[in-house]
Amino acid sequence: MDQNPKIRAVETYIQALCDHDLNAIKSLYTVDARVEDPAGTDPKIGIDAILRFYEEGFSSGLKAKLTGPVRVAANYAVFPFLVELQDHGMEIDVIDQFTFDENGKVTAMTAFWGSENTRFG
Amino acid sequence: MDQNPKIRAVETYIQALCDHDLNAIKSLYTVDARVEDPAGTDPKIGIDAILRFYEEGFSSGLKAKLTGPVRVAANYAVFPFLVELQDHGMEIDVIDQFTFDENGKVTAMTAFWGSENTRFG
Repeated sequence: MDQNPKIRAVETYIQALCDHDLNAIKSLYTVDARVEDPAGTDPKIGIDAILRFYEEGFSSGLKAKLTGPVRVAANYAVFPFLVELQDHGMEIDVIDQFTFDENGKVTAMTAFWGSENTRFG
Repeated sequence: MDQNPKIRAVETYIQALCDHDLNAIKSLYTVDARVEDPAGTDPKIGIDAILRFYEEGFSSGLKAKLTGPVRVAANYAVFPFLVELQDHGMEIDVIDQFTFDENGKVTAMTAFWGSENTRFG
């Protein structure tokens, strides 16, 4: 385990995506957090809306793995990863940006990906 | 060359970093652009301050290469890359975020990296 708490939070996040572990997801976010996935779409605001969003992903056979080091700067962690939606035969190259509060909880997540980053088959 | 203009801009940027080509850097940014590198530090505002910043990097033997696909969403391009400062024997894993205006020029760049992403030797 990495000693940097922001990197640990990202590792917990990727593991939770693979395990479809909503409780672990919930433990990472503040109750009033904001998730914009992908950037430019309507955000999910508040932990209930956020958990529903992840539940949908999990129901599509979501898997995830880091594809490079977690970058840590100021109150941010930014990390490249691969998402598989196994039920749709879909792969997406994503970069997520986490913004942390002073307690180490994620107050905002923005996901960067688009059609150029999506493959089928 | 990729057909997506945001991806082309990133390819031009990485090539300009390797070539130490200030004119190419200048062509990518708006005159009033903002560069925050790394996130959390005082931004360089305006093309003159920005070009001075790159000139410093170039004088340290800067090289750069993409280490994964450019993520494109809304008016953003976000991309993982490796920076070498050859004169300092230093390597940094960076993720940059470009924000584009409607003319395809970069209005803001934020670089995400920290001590965890820096290696010497």
